[in-house]
Amino acid sequence: MTSEDCVAVCGGTHGNEMSGIYLAKHWLRDPMELQRSSFAVTPFLGNPRAIEKCVRYVGQDLNRTFTTEFLSSTEVEDEPYEVVLAREINQTYGPKGSAQAFDFMFDLHNTTASMGTYLIVDSEESLLPMHIPCPIYLYKLPGEETYSINSVAKAGLGREQLGPQPQQVVRADLFSQMRDIIACALDFIELFNKGTVFPAFEIEAYKITGRMDYPCYPDGEISAMVHPKLQDKDFLPLNPRDPIFQTFSGEEILYEGNTTIYPAFINEAAYYKKKVAFVKMEKHTFSIPGLQRD
Amino acid sequence: MTSEDCVAVCGGTHGNEMSGIYLAKHWLRDPMELQRSSFAVTPFLGNPRAIEKCVRYVGQDLNRTFTTEFLSSTEVEDEPYEVVLAREINQTYGPKGSAQAFDFMFDLHNTTASMGTYLIVDSEESLLPMHIPCPIYLYKLPGEETYSINSVAKAGLGREQLGPQPQQVVRADLFSQMRDIIACALDFIELFNKGTVFPAFEIEAYKITGRMDYPCYPDGEISAMVHPKLQDKDFLPLNPRDPIFQTFSGEEILYEGNTTIYPAFINEAAYYKKKVAFVKMEKHTFSIPGLQRD
Repeated sequence: MTSEDCVAVCGGTHGNEMSGIYLAKHWLRDPMELQRSSFAVTPFLGNPRAIEKCVRYVGQDLNRTFTTEFLSSTEVEDEPYEVVLAREINQTYGPKGSAQAFDFMFDLHNTTASMGTYLIVDSEESLLPMHIPCPIYLYKLPGEETYSINSVAKAGLGREQLGPQPQQVVRADLFSQMRDIIACALDFIELFNKGTVFPAFEIEAYKITGRMDYPCYPDGEISAMVHPKLQDKDFLPLNPRDPIFQTFSGEEILYEGNTTIYPAFINEAAYYKKKVAFVKMEKHTFSIPGLQRD
Repeated sequence: MTSEDCVAVCGGTHGNEMSGIYLAKHWLRDPMELQRSSFAVTPFLGNPRAIEKCVRYVGQDLNRTFTTEFLSSTEVEDEPYEVVLAREINQTYGPKGSAQAFDFMFDLHNTTASMGTYLIVDSEESLLPMHIPCPIYLYKLPGEETYSINSVAKAGLGREQLGPQPQQVVRADLFSQMRDIIACALDFIELFNKGTVFPAFEIEAYKITGRMDYPCYPDGEISAMVHPKLQDKDFLPLNPRDPIFQTFSGEEILYEGNTTIYPAFINEAAYYKKKVAFVKMEKHTFSIPGLQRD
C-alpha cells in the first residue's frame, strides 16, 4: 500500500439491504469518519436504480455480474441494466485484474438470516482480510469464477454481511455494528500501512460446501418451511437426522447427510427465488501466516 | 348466522407477506382443517399478480382500494391492476354493504414490527370480533371510510397481523400461530352458531390516534432511524421525552407529545414509502355487551 492507495466502500449493491445504503448515503453527505492519513476512501451506491425502487435488483443480480463474460460484453440493445452498470463500475474502480484497479473494496450487505456479523471472503488465501478481527466465512466454491462487485478491486476484502434484518428496513443497532466494523477495518489498513506487524495465528472459519434446496410439490411450489428447530441457528452444528424442514401439512423432514455441518443464510428472503433454504458450511482451522507491509 | 353462512379467509392481499400466502395455498390444496359443521369457509389468494412477483402490490395497495370511489368506478384503459381486482373481489365476496355479501372475512397479514399476534378491528362497535379471544387493536381513524378487503363482507372480522417476520420470508413458528388463531376464530363462530352465550366483559384494547413520520433532510430523504430503545417495543408505553429517533449522525430525537402513547407498527418496512415510523395508539378499556345468536 502507498499513500495513493484507494479504498472503496459500497452500499446498495442490493437495493433493499438498507444498512449499507443508509451508511453510504450518510458518508456521501459527510465523509469525515472515513478519513485516514495513509489512504483515500470513496463511498458509493452500488445499484442506484434498484435503491430507488427498493428492490434487490432491476434486471439481474448485480452481485453476480462481475464475471469476464459480462464485463467484456459489448453494449447491445435491451441488455439488463445491471450489465451496463457492472461495466461502468468496472471502469471506475477496476478494471478487474488490472494495475489501475482500486486496492480494496468493502461491500455492505444484510441478510434476513440470524447470522450476526460476518466478513465473507473468497478463500483463505486472501491473506489481508483473514487478519481483520471479524468472524469469517469463505464463500467461493471450488472452480467457481469470482462474480461479486468487490472482485473488481485488487483485494476484494469481502462482503460484510449483517443480520437478521428484514429487507427494506434499517435497524439502528445493526447500523451501528456495520459502521463499527468498517471503522475497525479502515483502522486495520491504517496500521498495516504504518508498518504494524501482524503475527501468524490460527483461526476457525466456515467454508461453503454446497446449498440445500427446499422440498417442492410436483408443480414446483415449495412444500415446506425451515424447521422451527433450525430457524435462527446459523453457524450452529446440524447433525445427521436433525430436523431441517416442516411441511405445510406438519410433517418433519430430517437432514440426510452423514456428517455434521454448519448451516448459514437460513431462511434468507432473497434465496426463495432459487429455492435455496440454507447454505452448507464446514468448520475448519486455518493457519494464517504473519503479515507486514513490504 | 345460518347453515348457509359463508366465511372467506384471504391470504396474500399484500403479495410479500408470506404466512397468509402459504396458509391460503395450503388450504386451497387441502381445505379439510377449515371445515366446520355450521358454515362454509372459502380460502382465496387476494392479489395473485403481486404474489407471483413477491411484492406488496403491482399498481396500488389493494388493501386501500375497497372504497366507494374505486368499487363504483367503471373500467378504463390502463387503470391499476388492483382497481380491477377490487371490483372482481367485491363481486365474488360482496357486494360491500349488500345482503348477498359473505358474512365474514378474515384477512391475513404480516408485519416486520415486533407486534406479536393481533386482530385489527375497525372499531369497538364490531361486536363479534371483540369477543374473539385475541388481543385487539382498533384501526379506523374518526371519519375515515372503510377501505380494506375485509370490508367487503358483512362483518369484516378483522385483519390478523403477525410479526416480526421479514417480507418474502415464512417462519414456521409464526405460520403455526396464524393457523391456530384462524382455527380458534372458526371455532368461535361455530360455538356462536350453536347458541353459546358469550357474557358481557371488559377488555383493554389499543386505538389508533395518528401516525409519526420520520424526520427528513430538506431533499425529502429520511435523516434518522427508529431509536434502538424504541425498536421492538410495540404496544409498550412511550412517555414524553423518551427517545424515538436516532439520526444517521448519531443524535437523539425525543418524543414531544404531552401524554403517554403506545406505538405500534414500529419500523414496518412497507411504511417507509409513506415515511411513517410508527402509528400512535392509546390504551382504552371497553365494556363489551354479551353476545348470543338471535
